[in-house]
Amino acid sequence: MLTGESLSLKLENIRSALNRQEETLIFALIERAQFRLNASIYDPKAFRLESLSFLDYLLLETEKVHARVRRYTSPDELPFFPLTSLPDPILPEAVYPKSIVPNQVNLNEDIKQAYLESIVPELCLPGDDGHFGSSALGDVSVLQILSKRIHYGKFVAEAKFLRHRDKFVVLIRRGDRERILDAITDAKVEEQVLDRIQAKAAAYGRNESNPGAPQLIDPLLVRKVYEKIVIPLTKQVQLLYLLDRLKHE
Amino acid sequence: MLTGESLSLKLENIRSALNRQEETLIFALIERAQFRLNASIYDPKAFRLESLSFLDYLLLETEKVHARVRRYTSPDELPFFPLTSLPDPILPEAVYPKSIVPNQVNLNEDIKQAYLESIVPELCLPGDDGHFGSSALGDVSVLQILSKRIHYGKFVAEAKFLRHRDKFVVLIRRGDRERILDAITDAKVEEQVLDRIQAKAAAYGRNESNPGAPQLIDPLLVRKVYEKIVIPLTKQVQLLYLLDRLKHE
Repeated sequence: MLTGESLSLKLENIRSALNRQEETLIFALIERAQFRLNASIYDPKAFRLESLSFLDYLLLETEKVHARVRRYTSPDELPFFPLTSLPDPILPEAVYPKSIVPNQVNLNEDIKQAYLESIVPELCLPGDDGHFGSSALGDVSVLQILSKRIHYGKFVAEAKFLRHRDKFVVLIRRGDRERILDAITDAKVEEQVLDRIQAKAAAYGRNESNPGAPQLIDPLLVRKVYEKIVIPLTKQVQLLYLLDRLKHE
Repeated sequence: MLTGESLSLKLENIRSALNRQEETLIFALIERAQFRLNASIYDPKAFRLESLSFLDYLLLETEKVHARVRRYTSPDELPFFPLTSLPDPILPEAVYPKSIVPNQVNLNEDIKQAYLESIVPELCLPGDDGHFGSSALGDVSVLQILSKRIHYGKFVAEAKFLRHRDKFVVLIRRGDRERILDAITDAKVEEQVLDRIQAKAAAYGRNESNPGAPQLIDPLLVRKVYEKIVIPLTKQVQLLYLLDRLKHE
């Protein structure tokens, strides 16, 4: 019989979760794309919001609310702001099946920087449309699902570690980052993921209201999100998780 | 040259906004539908959250954050909780082009009740999956877009009023609700909207990851959301808005 532990680390379950997260990410990107760039929401000096940009203010305040309902006690949810700047949960901690080992891996800073610098300028038409709140809310949704998807690499890494423990123990002891990266890389699967996300974006991004109008999102841009951000940062998460894994042996 | 005022009341612009809101609503419903019903999030006694249900707590706290960034100063955004329980905006009020007249019409209570009673039980598989936060967040997104879509009826009503002022003034003076409802109803257009939303839900709800698996949402349920909630409550919004319209003549 499978315990909760082995269930949440079954590669098939991980794959199905990753797969479903693709839809969520595509929907979130489509929602952000309907508004203009609205660059002032990224400028800490544009609004008087406690020295934060509009986006950072909304992200921090949203994380405070979610922290109170224990979002960040879940092993697959990580905040963009340090836990020390967030309130304690007001709900008792939920019991999660044992899955990944405790760790400090959090690449949210890199995720945010990559999204804001290389995706948003291509995702949105330039200029302002006054929809600052909607645009920032759209960014919050994209960042949250990007973070979840990328840090899911920890579950992938743990499943791979358990499957090939002896091999990984040797590589980790040696601190051989290159070989660990090799061991967690499958170029063929990566190419399949890229083709799949592009096909999904083409399907979900069809403009059903007005087939003559531009699609809701450029499928090649979604492919780029995976190529430049999701896949490399997921591998980085896996690597960092594994390098620290033996502490729990 | 069109001023901001006439632009935001051009029927073509209103129609295009309503049309785009359909996509947002379908995406939000699809996101909620991936989780089970999780009935305890609707029970004010299930969690210790200041006597509120998990959903209401999350909704209230989210509205507090959004109120601070002036969401509810926009004529097309209405909170579910009374403004008196929300903080003042910390941003200066944005300047909106003159469009609808000031009014108190807010059907959010009815929207929430209808959504929770007649949609959620069909949208979600029964039972618990422990994803309380994700489910409640999904509900918040659906409720916010339902509210926006339905209260957009005010813009529709104002545009109709301006176009047929003499006729509406007579009906409003008489308080003839029935004839006002007649004047704002177009059964043929309603049927077209229902067919369109059903077709869109079928398109966006295709399971692209696994074409053999069930679709992400039942197109007939989305049609029902429009038939039982969106269309009748939008007409109610239009009626209430018009009944009070002459105060501003």
